[in-house]
Amino acid sequence: MSFEASVDEYIFRVDAALAKTLPGQRVVPQTLHEAMHYATLNGGKRIRPLLVYATGEVMGVDVALLDAPAVAVELIHAFSLVHDDLPAMDDDDLRRGRPTVHRQFDEATAILAADALQPLAFEVLAGGHTPEHAQQRLAMVRILARACGSLGMTGGQAIDIESEGQRISSERLQMMFEQKTGALIEAAVHMAAALATDASREEHLALAGFARNLGLAFQIRDDLLEIEGNTETIGKSAGSDAANDKATWPAVHGAARAREDCERLYEDGITQLTLFGDRAEPLRVLAHRIVWRED
Amino acid sequence: MSFEASVDEYIFRVDAALAKTLPGQRVVPQTLHEAMHYATLNGGKRIRPLLVYATGEVMGVDVALLDAPAVAVELIHAFSLVHDDLPAMDDDDLRRGRPTVHRQFDEATAILAADALQPLAFEVLAGGHTPEHAQQRLAMVRILARACGSLGMTGGQAIDIESEGQRISSERLQMMFEQKTGALIEAAVHMAAALATDASREEHLALAGFARNLGLAFQIRDDLLEIEGNTETIGKSAGSDAANDKATWPAVHGAARAREDCERLYEDGITQLTLFGDRAEPLRVLAHRIVWRED
Repeated sequence: MSFEASVDEYIFRVDAALAKTLPGQRVVPQTLHEAMHYATLNGGKRIRPLLVYATGEVMGVDVALLDAPAVAVELIHAFSLVHDDLPAMDDDDLRRGRPTVHRQFDEATAILAADALQPLAFEVLAGGHTPEHAQQRLAMVRILARACGSLGMTGGQAIDIESEGQRISSERLQMMFEQKTGALIEAAVHMAAALATDASREEHLALAGFARNLGLAFQIRDDLLEIEGNTETIGKSAGSDAANDKATWPAVHGAARAREDCERLYEDGITQLTLFGDRAEPLRVLAHRIVWRED
Repeated sequence: MSFEASVDEYIFRVDAALAKTLPGQRVVPQTLHEAMHYATLNGGKRIRPLLVYATGEVMGVDVALLDAPAVAVELIHAFSLVHDDLPAMDDDDLRRGRPTVHRQFDEATAILAADALQPLAFEVLAGGHTPEHAQQRLAMVRILARACGSLGMTGGQAIDIESEGQRISSERLQMMFEQKTGALIEAAVHMAAALATDASREEHLALAGFARNLGLAFQIRDDLLEIEGNTETIGKSAGSDAANDKATWPAVHGAARAREDCERLYEDGITQLTLFGDRAEPLRVLAHRIVWRED
């Protein structure tokens, strides 16, 4: 079966796993748990979990092992969106066509709900009490923790906030993109690869190169959709980057160059997969879907 | 050597390990890393790391294994203080006699610095690439992650915020204390105990009972210091609980009953340690220091 045909099934799978992972909405403190559900079970595109499943397919990993990293990476993504939307940060009112968490609830609840999503990701990765795959689970904790931290996603967001209204060098912009968006995209791929105990060094390097290119192409595409799209399709306030005077790829390099760079990075990423031959179909399909999406 | 004589050495030890764990202040993004240092290396009392070391001494755990949980629990504690102090939460200007992180830097930096301290804790626990103690390290990740989450510290903080200006039942107050303060105190003890592979079920239960009592006594003592102390000794704005109309043990039960409960919980906690005989000296000394402290 082609990966395209499996996408809906995987999205259903990770959504079910997320729902099972979150404490019920009637568990005290109820408002906090409602906010955690609201932030997570929201019809998101589940790009990062799909990358986990696709990488796992390529590397021949048992799908039952992939649910934990798929859930964990999405919990971290959800956490980051809630904090990014806060008044002290990007101050966004809409996310995926709905009020942001601090608008739907309040600011304290948004801060805390996200704070509680983060450790849940690590709890899921550390898994149950069975002794299997201990080394791989520890590796996944390390990979995700590093991707979240000050040298990963959170560091990227800090550079983003610092750069508002400033001229930014293209090197710093690229570093910001690699940390803010790339780190978690790469973590999704690396966690699944960590579960493939027989993967060669060349395979790990090829996947790393693929993920790095994809992460950058993804964020440039995001910037382009922001200037080309409208609020309805992209589900958040269109033009909010410009309103916030954000450092974006089109703002620094121009829209034409941004489109070229996005295409080049995508092609380079696909080239990295040559080593895997036909086995790489799931990642090729997914990369195409991610980079050439319309929302 | 008595534990009292080792306290300063352990504080020095964990401070050195924290400094080594945090990325340097000149690493980009610099402001974020400065804020992480400011939030963590601040002359804190290191009560939770001391609990890790004391429990480890009682259980005969190699001290070299205790640095990771000691650092991790303090990083989580530091993270929680930064978010608790935010304007949307307790809105505090002072912490340990210095401006709070959002006052010293800004709100976005405070949110992000804390967000980056949290995953660092899990990265430290998951450790290096050596294969030793994998099961114990996974157990520590689970223990700490659960203690941080919506059924632990963050859940307790959510109940605290929800309860401002409200009448709170004594059951809900106790639950709030057990989650907000108790969960991390208990995690410190349980992580060290998880490293003692030969510990019996009775020993685990005794430590759990001790930690539960200590956590509650500690928070009641904190409330009492708040109403009895002054800004200089306690290092934060005295009376800020009353100003925020916080649910506290003295507010719900009266100061006299709060003092009695604190003493009773302390005694009950010490009684739980009987099983260990003289071996329990480090935990007895530390519990006394924690519950009868003056700041």
